[in-house]
Order: sequence, then structure tokens, then C-alpha cells
Amino acid sequence: MTFPTSETFSTAHESSSAEAGVVDIARRAKVAARSLATASTDTKNRALEAVADALLVNQQRILTANQADVDREREAGLDEGLLDRLALDEGRLRGIAGALRDLATLPDPVGEVVRGSTLPNGIRLRQLRVPMGVVGMIYEARPNVTVDAAGIALKSGNAVILRGGSAALESNTALVDVIAAALVQQGLPADLVQSIDRYGRAGAVALMRARGLVDVLVPRGGANLIQTVVREASVPVIETGVGNCHVYVDAQVDEDQALAIAINSKTHRISVCNATETILVNEVVAPSFLPRLLVALAEGGVTIHGDAHTQALAPSGVDVLTATDEDWATEYLSMDVAVRVVPDLDSALEHIRLWSSGHTDAICTTSLLSSERFTAEVDSAVVNVNASTRFTDGGEFGLGAEIGISTQKLHARGPMGLAELTTTKWIVVGDGHIRQ
Amino acid sequence: MTFPTSETFSTAHESSSAEAGVVDIARRAKVAARSLATASTDTKNRALEAVADALLVNQQRILTANQADVDREREAGLDEGLLDRLALDEGRLRGIAGALRDLATLPDPVGEVVRGSTLPNGIRLRQLRVPMGVVGMIYEARPNVTVDAAGIALKSGNAVILRGGSAALESNTALVDVIAAALVQQGLPADLVQSIDRYGRAGAVALMRARGLVDVLVPRGGANLIQTVVREASVPVIETGVGNCHVYVDAQVDEDQALAIAINSKTHRISVCNATETILVNEVVAPSFLPRLLVALAEGGVTIHGDAHTQALAPSGVDVLTATDEDWATEYLSMDVAVRVVPDLDSALEHIRLWSSGHTDAICTTSLLSSERFTAEVDSAVVNVNASTRFTDGGEFGLGAEIGISTQKLHARGPMGLAELTTTKWIVVGDGHIRQ
Repeated sequence: MTFPTSETFSTAHESSSAEAGVVDIARRAKVAARSLATASTDTKNRALEAVADALLVNQQRILTANQADVDREREAGLDEGLLDRLALDEGRLRGIAGALRDLATLPDPVGEVVRGSTLPNGIRLRQLRVPMGVVGMIYEARPNVTVDAAGIALKSGNAVILRGGSAALESNTALVDVIAAALVQQGLPADLVQSIDRYGRAGAVALMRARGLVDVLVPRGGANLIQTVVREASVPVIETGVGNCHVYVDAQVDEDQALAIAINSKTHRISVCNATETILVNEVVAPSFLPRLLVALAEGGVTIHGDAHTQALAPSGVDVLTATDEDWATEYLSMDVAVRVVPDLDSALEHIRLWSSGHTDAICTTSLLSSERFTAEVDSAVVNVNASTRFTDGGEFGLGAEIGISTQKLHARGPMGLAELTTTKWIVVGDGHIRQ
Repeated sequence: MTFPTSETFSTAHESSSAEAGVVDIARRAKVAARSLATASTDTKNRALEAVADALLVNQQRILTANQADVDREREAGLDEGLLDRLALDEGRLRGIAGALRDLATLPDPVGEVVRGSTLPNGIRLRQLRVPMGVVGMIYEARPNVTVDAAGIALKSGNAVILRGGSAALESNTALVDVIAAALVQQGLPADLVQSIDRYGRAGAVALMRARGLVDVLVPRGGANLIQTVVREASVPVIETGVGNCHVYVDAQVDEDQALAIAINSKTHRISVCNATETILVNEVVAPSFLPRLLVALAEGGVTIHGDAHTQALAPSGVDVLTATDEDWATEYLSMDVAVRVVPDLDSALEHIRLWSSGHTDAICTTSLLSSERFTAEVDSAVVNVNASTRFTDGGEFGLGAEIGISTQKLHARGPMGLAELTTTKWIVVGDGHIRQ
């Protein structure tokens, strides 16, 4: 987590020059967005291919810049997980370029007629999908997001302003330079993809306050980053990615299936937002199911935090730490899990209501009644029945590209594809119509 | 305009007790919303009918409370226009009740399957329309909005928290009491419709900051109110209703049609957001068209603010005041209009880009090329071709109820119907599916 809290933001002097710089960048982005808004799908796809080519042609330059970031951050003591996210190599760069070519194959959301009719008075009404305009992205030191965000913005017809964090400064500078040059060669404005990293923290704040110039801001990263943006921004924000996800094992259940789903949801990939953090087990099945679950978790190397009932049912040799409210509240993103025995479906629903972050919650059940109640009453972006929480993903859902997973209710909820970076415009065509 | 700016917000003591009160109200709203989220359309429609009945049964009480508001505000010097918006009578109350019965006849957006498919791996995926949860409304002293907002929230499955302004305090208190009692009689929780008016300005601020408890905030009123909410709120806001609308009269045009559209757009109803404020005239048609336009405006009692070219073409006897940037920027909402002669379509587009509030802008033209460019390049919620700007309206668009007209790009843009007060939820149904 390299992002500052509001208390640590920079001095007044830094702020005012950063603000002027960011406002200028946003103004230029707005002008550039105009030319892209009416560009054909072919033009955008050719630009994506050109950027992919340019990344490979300029591989040496990009990897050298990246190596400088990695060396500096390793020296500064950045942990290995974050260093791994920061590092690029030939293979990763090829993967990033490939993702751009995949974007080029996706349908273009812009221009879709969402609704339309001829009104009784003869007016022809159409609601068209159009680009947002200028999209801001605030994320942490992951150079792949720089290219990914640029590609997604381009395909959805938007200009993008990137704030990628100081740890990836040289990588992102090189990447944005290469992308902008490729766009210019395709006859598109360089200002479509700009970085504000040189303005540091004050620049990030200026971006959050650039209402009227920036149409939407998408923070990608940890809970701390996202909460800072939500609190500071006057620009509309789409909150993404915090996932305190649950698996509830119902009284009537296929225990083998439930075991596989619980283990997969927790351990398939622990550092992602759709990983499960708490497993709730109905007390009816707890005596038979829970010991198997705890053994499988322990064998998988998972540290278990359980309530008293769970601890009582733990087979000897399986350690269960005492869970507190802190555990129910935590998005571990680690090989830890919280386990609780609940008396009934209502208690499971109540636990989820209290502690879920509204990302993804799953039920394992063979009861139609339980399934219907769970899907109706759990107020989360994605509600699963007999499927791992790990399926909450734009790719798995068939949306193609994914910008992030929205955990708010406004505009987009759940995995966000290209269409979620667009808005709509009503076109009203008359023949001299006036209101009577 | 009765709403405070941030500078005039209340003392720390008032704030903290107001905050506790509003948080408690929001918590109760959230609980109440849960029971409504799974209520059938029939239940909601019966409740709407019951509220309509109760308004008429309790007419005496409501009108007495309203008379007290009107008397007090007249004494305090509220202007006649605002007094007229504040005042209720038997006829208006019947109209308000009738609007609730109309709401009952509209389709229910909740439960609609927005998208759905069976994924290659066999998972059944559905995206369902569900209520937002808790909707906040901040508006000015218009008691009809109290009932209207309650009805729209109810039909879309949401609890609502109302902040209606001190001028209508007694009217709103009576209305909310009557509505809540009618809901209880229908077996629904009273907390579905609550007012925070008793907490004054500090209560409004607390509502704006109740992120996590309030899902969306819709301010309805003047530009000052809306900008305050946008600036202060951490809750997601839908910006509504500021309309600096334009009519552009192109070089190739049916002048009679353009004259009718320009006059209708300006004068049909001056106090509303879809009224036109600036008329742009292409210089090719200005010598023939502009004198007719200016005479018609003057005869209609409109005060004209024009650029030098417009002044030069004004027939004798028609006064044209000198327009400044202030005029291009102003949403008059009065019998004033700004008029400018532009050399070409590009200049008209540039003027609109600079000054439009992104609500509704219209072109009058017989040129397909001009029409296509105008609709593609004007970045407003509604773009009209040969139709009055006054058509931007949920009723005219066939959406049924209208909550307001969004001038932002996130979530909703243009007239907002019931569906715009909902969000979606993904339901993922598997048979023990795990990620490989």
C-alpha cells in the first residue's frame, strides 16, 4: 500500500502547482476524447494493435525502466509480493500486448442503441451508448494496469488519466510514452493516454477534485486506497474490489460438493477480491461436515480462526484460533479463514448482512427454499448457488475485458466490462415538433 | 433557495446530535428496505393505492398544516412564486393522490432479468434488477415532491429519507405521518418513508455523509442546492436538473419550423430545466430569420440579450441588450433569452461545448450532414433535431414517473424513471462448480 491517507497529503505549494498541472492534463484529455468519441471501431482496433506492436518493439526500453523501479524498490525494502507485481519481463510484456490484441477482437459498446421507439406524437427516440469522456484511474504499482487501463479506455472511446504510484514511476513513464507515440502514428492524439505520476500525491488529490473535467474515477487497489478516493473525491467514483466474501453451507447439502467449493473459494488464489474469507456452517451438518472441512483447510496450509462451536468440533491435531469480530470483518487476502457455526439460514443471512462487503457470497445447498431465500435476501453484487466465489470475474462471466469489480450500487455492480465505461445519450428527432 | 451553503452549516453540538438522529433513521430505513425488496408488485401497488386514499381521508389535517406553512412563509416574505409551489389545496391534493394511482399502473422494474446466459462450463448466469435500498432526497419546499418521492421509492422497492426544507416543515410532517400510517395498515414498515426535517441543516449534512447507509442521494432544486450536495456528499449523488439549453438554427433550415421551435423552447414554460436559454443562429440565415425571431420574442414579452451581430440585425422597435459571457453562462429560468449569430456549425458546437450544462441542446436543420454532426458531437444528455427542448421529460419519453433529469454521466443520464432507482445483482447457479 503506497497510497497516502488524507492527513499526509502534501504542502499548499506543491498542491497548487500540481492542481494546475492536473487541470491542464484533464483539459487536454477532454479535447482528445472528443476525437475518439466519433472514431470508428476499426480505427480503435487498429490503434490497439499498433500499441501492442509498439510495446514489443520498445521492449528493451520498457524493461530497462522497469528494472530501475524494481532495483530502487527492492533497495527501499518493498516486500516480495509487491516486487513481483511490479516486475516485468519478456513473457509478461508479451502477455500484456496479447491482452490488447484480445481487446481489439471484442465488440465495441459505443453506438449500441439501448432503447428506442417512435412516440405517439411521431418523435423518433433513441438512447445510444456513448463514451464517458475522460476516465481517471488511480492504482498501485502495477505496470500491467497502465497498459490494461489505456487499452480498455481506448476501446470504449474514452481518454484516460493514469495515476500509477511512485514505485512504478519509470516503468509507467516509459509505457505511457510508447503508447502515446503509437497513438500519434495512428493519427490519434497523444493526450488520450496521460500520466499524472510526476505530480505525486498532490496530483492524485487534484484528479479526485477535477469535477467537470473528469467524468469518472476508478480506484484499483487495496481497501485503504479505495476508501481514500471515496472520501476525497468530488468526481463520481466507482468503488471496486474490496471482497469480504462468504460461503454458507446449508443444512441440506451435498457435503462433497460443499467441501470442494469451500476449499476452492478460499485457497484457489488467496490474494484476490473474490477469494472467500469466512465459511459459515449450519449446525445441522456441522458434526459431519466441519471436521472434514477443518482437516482439509489445515492440510492446505490455511490458518483457521473459529468460533467456540467450531473449536469444539475440531479434530485433535487441527488448531483453531479464537475468532473475534475482527476476524468476521477482515478481508485476509492470505492463507487465513474464519469459520463459524450458525443455527440456521436466518443467522447466516444476518452474519452476511453485518459483515459482507457486498462483493460475492455463496450458498451450498440442495434446498430450493434456501437457495431462493439466499439469492433474494443477500444484498451483494454477486450471489452464488453451488459455485465457488472465485467465478466472480469479467472473463468468467464472458464480458471480455474487466476494469474491476464494482461493490457499489450506482452505475455498475459486479464485474465491469467495456460497457460500464460508457454512458448514454438520448437522440430526439422530430419534424418541427413543439410542446402543446 | 432555502438551502445553506457549507459555510453556514450549524454548530458542532447541533451537528453531532443531528448526525446521531440521521444515522438512526438511516439504519431503520435499511432494515425497512429489506422487507420491501422482496415484496410483490401487488403488495407495492396496494400500498400506493392505500396512501392515495389516506391523503384524501386526511385532507383536512394536511391542508391545515400546509396553511400554517404558507402563512408563516408569507409573513417571512417568501416570494409569490415559491409560495405558489408551497401551497396545497383540494385540487392539488387530488392531483397528488392521482399521481400515486398512476404509479400503481406502471410496470415494476424490480425482478427484470437484464442479461442472462448459460456459460460454457454450465453455470447459469442472470443479472437481475433489484432495488437500490435506501434513497435520500434533498429538495426545496414543495410538498408535492414529498409524496411523489415516497411513491416512486415505494414502487421501485426502496426506502426513502426525505429532507424537504424548513418552509414546508408542517406540511411535510403531516404528509409523512399520513403516508407512514397507511403503509403500516398495509403491513409494511413505517420506516420506509421518513423525514429528517426536524434535524435542520445539520441533518442534511449528516445525510450526505451517511455512506454505507444511504445508497444514493438525489438532490432536486436549484443549481445552488445541487452544487452544495455534490460538493459535500460522500454518498453517491445523481446530479439533476440544471439546464442551460440551446437551440441552434442551421444554415439550411425550414425557417417557420425553426421559429416555432425556438419560441416554444424558450416560452412554453420558463421556470423549468428544459426551457431554452440561448438561441444560436447561423449567419447565412440570420438576415432573413433573426428579425422574425426577435420580433416574435419581443411580442412574447421576452427580454433579449444579444451579441453585436444580433443587435445590428434587430428591427427598429425591438430592444436587444448587450450579451456578455455572463449571459451565455446563465440558466435564466425567466422571460430572458440570449441570442448569438455564429459563422458556422463548428462555432455553434464550440459555443455549446463551452456553455451548455449538458442537459438538452437542439438543432433546427434540413441538412443530414449537420444533423449527424450535431447529434454525434454535442455531449449532452438529450440532443434534439427539429424538436423543442421542452420534450426532455420522463412523461414525454414514455418512462411514466420521473424522479428528475440527470445531467451527469454515471448511472443515469437524462430523464430518470423507476428503473434508474434500481441496481442489479448477478445470480450465479452451478452444480458444485469450482475454478480450475
